[in-house]
Amino acid sequence: MEWRINVGDGSSKALAPKASCFASKLCAALKESFMAFIIRIRGFFLKAWKLGVDDPRKFVHGIKAGMALTLVSLFYYMRPLYDGVGGNAMWAVMTVVVVFENTVGATIYKSLNRVFATSLAGFLALGVHWVASQSGRRFEPVISCLAVFLLASAATFSRFIPTIKARFDYGCLIFILTFSMVSVSGYRVEQLFDVAHQRMATIIIGTSLVIIVTMFICPIWAGQELHTLIIRNMDKIANSLDGSMDLYFGQKEEETGPDKQLGNKSLGYRCVLGSKASEESFANFARWEPAHGQFSFKHPWKQYLKVGAALRSCAYCIEALNGCINSENQAPDAVKRHLREACERVSSTCSIITRELAKTIQTTTRSPTVDFLTKEMNVAVQELHNSLKSLPDALNEESESESESESESESADGDAKSARVVPLMEVIPAATFASLLIEISSRVDSVVGTVKELAEMCEFEVGGGSSSGKSTSELETVKVLERV
Amino acid sequence: MEWRINVGDGSSKALAPKASCFASKLCAALKESFMAFIIRIRGFFLKAWKLGVDDPRKFVHGIKAGMALTLVSLFYYMRPLYDGVGGNAMWAVMTVVVVFENTVGATIYKSLNRVFATSLAGFLALGVHWVASQSGRRFEPVISCLAVFLLASAATFSRFIPTIKARFDYGCLIFILTFSMVSVSGYRVEQLFDVAHQRMATIIIGTSLVIIVTMFICPIWAGQELHTLIIRNMDKIANSLDGSMDLYFGQKEEETGPDKQLGNKSLGYRCVLGSKASEESFANFARWEPAHGQFSFKHPWKQYLKVGAALRSCAYCIEALNGCINSENQAPDAVKRHLREACERVSSTCSIITRELAKTIQTTTRSPTVDFLTKEMNVAVQELHNSLKSLPDALNEESESESESESESESADGDAKSARVVPLMEVIPAATFASLLIEISSRVDSVVGTVKELAEMCEFEVGGGSSSGKSTSELETVKVLERV
Repeated sequence: MEWRINVGDGSSKALAPKASCFASKLCAALKESFMAFIIRIRGFFLKAWKLGVDDPRKFVHGIKAGMALTLVSLFYYMRPLYDGVGGNAMWAVMTVVVVFENTVGATIYKSLNRVFATSLAGFLALGVHWVASQSGRRFEPVISCLAVFLLASAATFSRFIPTIKARFDYGCLIFILTFSMVSVSGYRVEQLFDVAHQRMATIIIGTSLVIIVTMFICPIWAGQELHTLIIRNMDKIANSLDGSMDLYFGQKEEETGPDKQLGNKSLGYRCVLGSKASEESFANFARWEPAHGQFSFKHPWKQYLKVGAALRSCAYCIEALNGCINSENQAPDAVKRHLREACERVSSTCSIITRELAKTIQTTTRSPTVDFLTKEMNVAVQELHNSLKSLPDALNEESESESESESESESADGDAKSARVVPLMEVIPAATFASLLIEISSRVDSVVGTVKELAEMCEFEVGGGSSSGKSTSELETVKVLERV
Repeated sequence: MEWRINVGDGSSKALAPKASCFASKLCAALKESFMAFIIRIRGFFLKAWKLGVDDPRKFVHGIKAGMALTLVSLFYYMRPLYDGVGGNAMWAVMTVVVVFENTVGATIYKSLNRVFATSLAGFLALGVHWVASQSGRRFEPVISCLAVFLLASAATFSRFIPTIKARFDYGCLIFILTFSMVSVSGYRVEQLFDVAHQRMATIIIGTSLVIIVTMFICPIWAGQELHTLIIRNMDKIANSLDGSMDLYFGQKEEETGPDKQLGNKSLGYRCVLGSKASEESFANFARWEPAHGQFSFKHPWKQYLKVGAALRSCAYCIEALNGCINSENQAPDAVKRHLREACERVSSTCSIITRELAKTIQTTTRSPTVDFLTKEMNVAVQELHNSLKSLPDALNEESESESESESESESADGDAKSARVVPLMEVIPAATFASLLIEISSRVDSVVGTVKELAEMCEFEVGGGSSSGKSTSELETVKVLERV
C-alpha cells in the first residue's frame, strides 16, 4: 500500500472529486449496512415468530409472565392495598419477576426456597444484630462484618455440594442476600421487626400470585414434560432403528428426496444422546410438584432417569451402527442380501418393543405383549446368529449357482467370482453391523427391565382388557411376521 | 390385626407397664433417630470437606464471595460513603450477591448484562412514565400497566430464543425487573431521575467491586477451564483406549485389585459422554473474558466445541467397544491371540495421537510428530486389515500344528480341534471389536482435523525446535514400536 500526497495546484482539484466520491461511497456503504441490519432484524423476528408458532406454549408463557406482573402492579396502584403492605410492594414485583419460571415445579422450587431462606436468614440476622448491639458501639461493626463474611462464605461454598445444589441452590443465594441486607441495614434502621414483617408479607403475596398463575393458567408441569420427553425419546430410538435398516439395506441407490428424509429419520437418536441435562432438571423440579393428572406427589421420577439412561445406552450403540452405515468399507450385496431378513427382524422387534414401552408409559397400563415380544426378539437374535453361521455355505452355494448360470446374473458378477472361498474381509462389515444390532437388542432388553420396575413402582394397571390396545399390538406383531 | 380391650380390674395394671414400656421405646427410638441424624450430619460435613479438599478452589470461591460482601458492607458502615451513594447501598449488596459467579466470564457476563439492562429499562420506563403522565390522571395507570404487560411478555418470550438465551438471558430478567419497578414506583416517587442516578451508581460500585475481586484474587477463567476440560477429556479417551485393550486381551484372569483399577481407567470415556453441557457453558462465558494468559480476547472458543464434539464421537464408539468387552459372546483365545498385536498397535497409536493432541493444545505448539503418527496409525489399521484377512489361514495352521504336537498344547485344546475349518461365529466377536477399533481410528483422525483447524486459527507456533517435546514424542513412538 502506498500513500501519496501531491503538493501543488492540482491537489485541491484532485481532492474535491475524491472527497465527493468518498462521501457517496460512505453513503452507499451506510445504506447497505442499514439494509443488512434491517434484513437481519427481520430474520431475527421471523425466527422468533417461528419458534413461538412451533411451540405456542412459549407465547403463552410470555403472556402469563406479563399478566402476573401486571396483577402485582395493580396491587401497588390500589391505595388500600398499598397502605396495607407498605412501601415494600417493590419486593412483591421483584419476587414475581425472579420466581416466575416456565414449569410449575421450577416456580414452586424457587418460591419455597425464597420464602424459607428469607425467613431463616432474617431470624438469624436479627439474632446476630442483637448480639452485636449488646457488645458495645465499638465491636458492633466488627461482629456484623465477621458474621456476614463467615455465613456468606459458608453458604457460597455449600452451593457446590451436589445435594444442596440440586434442591436448595436458589435458597442459598437468597439466604446470603437477605442475611447481608438485614445485618447491613440493621446498623441504621431501628424498626427491624416491622421491616421483616412487611418484607415477608410482600414476598408471600408475590409467590402465591405467581404460583396461582403458573398452576391454573395453561400449566406446564415438569413431571409431564419428563414423561413426554422419555416417550418421545423412545419413539425416536425406534424410528432411528427403522431408518438405519432402510439406509443400510434398502434404498441406497436413490440419493435424493426420500433418502434425505430417511437420513433425518435415522438421526433422531442424536436428540437422545444430548437429553441427559434436561431429563435431570425436569426430574429435579418434578419433585416439588403436587399431584397432577396421572401423577401422584411421590411419583418415582428417579426411575424415569434410569429409563432415560438405558435409552441413551441404546443410542450410543445406534451411533456406532450409523458409523457402519457411513463407513467406506461395505460388505458386498450378496452378504447383505443373506443377512437382511434376520437383521430386519431383530431391528423391527426392537423398535416394536420400544414403541410398546412408550405406549406402556403413556397409558400407564402394563402391556400384555411386551413379554411375548421380548421372546420374539430373542428368537430373532438366535435366527440372526444362525444366518451368520450359515453365511459361508450360502455364499458358496450362491456363487456356484451363479457361475453355472452366468447369463442370468450380471450385476453381482465381479464379487461372485472371487467369492469362491468366502473371504473373511468381505463378511466383516456386515458381521459388525449384525453384532451391533445384537448388542442393541440386549440394551433394549435392559430398557424393558427399567420400564418394568417403573410399572411396579407406579402400580400400572394390567392392560389387555382394553381391546383396542391389544389389537394394535397384535396388528404390529402380524406386520413383523408378514414383513420377514 | 385384632384390637382387644379388656374391661375390668386388670386393665389399669395392664396399661401401666404398657405405658412405661411405650415411653421407654419412644425414648429409645428418639435417641436412635437423633444418633442417626447426628451421623448423617457428620457424613454431610465430611463429604463437603472432602469436596473442598479435592478442589480447594471451591473453598477459595466461598472466601472470595464473603470478602466481596464484607467490602460492600464496609461501604455502608462508613458514613461519608453512605451519604454519597444514598440509602440505596442495599442495591450494591444485592448486586454483589447476585452477580458474583465462579468464573470470571460468568461474572462479567452478569455484570455487563445488569448494567446495560438496568440503564436501558430505566430510560424506557422514564419515557413511558412521561407519556403516561401527559395523558391525564385517568389513563395513567392504564398506559403504565399496558406497557408493563407488553414489555414483560415480549422480554420473557425472547428468553426462549437461542441467541438471546446464550448471551442476554440474565439481561432480559433484569430488564423486566427494572422496567416494572421503575414504572410502578413512578406513580408515587417524584424524583425519578435522582433515584435512577443513585441506583446506577450503586450498581456500578457493586459490579466493579465484584469484577475486581473475581479477576485479581485467584481468578478462575472460563476459557482456561474449557481449555483444561478438553485436554483432560483427551487424556481420558487415551486412557480408556489403553484400558480397554488390557481388559480385552490381557489380565482377564485376575479379577481382583488391578482389574478393578483397569476397569476404572477404561471407564474414563463416560465423563466425556456427559461433558457437552459444561463445554457449552464455558465457551459461552469465555466469550466475555478479556485477554488472559495465553488466550487473546477473540480466541476461537467455538472451535473448542468442535474438538469436544469430535472427542465425544470417539467416546460413543468406545462405549460400543466396551459393550464388546462385557458381552457374553467372546472369541476363542486363539483368535484373540492372532489379532492382539495389530489391535494393540492401532489402539496405542490412537491413544498416543490423542495424548500428542492434548499436548499440542496445552503447549499451543504444533506437534511435528502428529502427521507422522497419523501415517503410523493408517499403517497399523492396514496391518489390522491384513491380520483379519490372514486369520482363517493362521487359525488353520495353528490348529494343524496343535493337533500334530498335541502333547505340548493343553489349554487351547477344546477349541483347537473344532477349529479345523474356522467357524465364522467364533471370529465375529473379535472381528467386531477390530472394526470398532478401525472406526475409532477414523474418528481420532477427525479429532486431528479439528485440532489442526484450531492450531491454524490460533496460529500455534511450530514446535520441534524444542528438543524436550520432540524427544518425549520420539520416546513414545519408540515405545509403540517396541511394544508391537
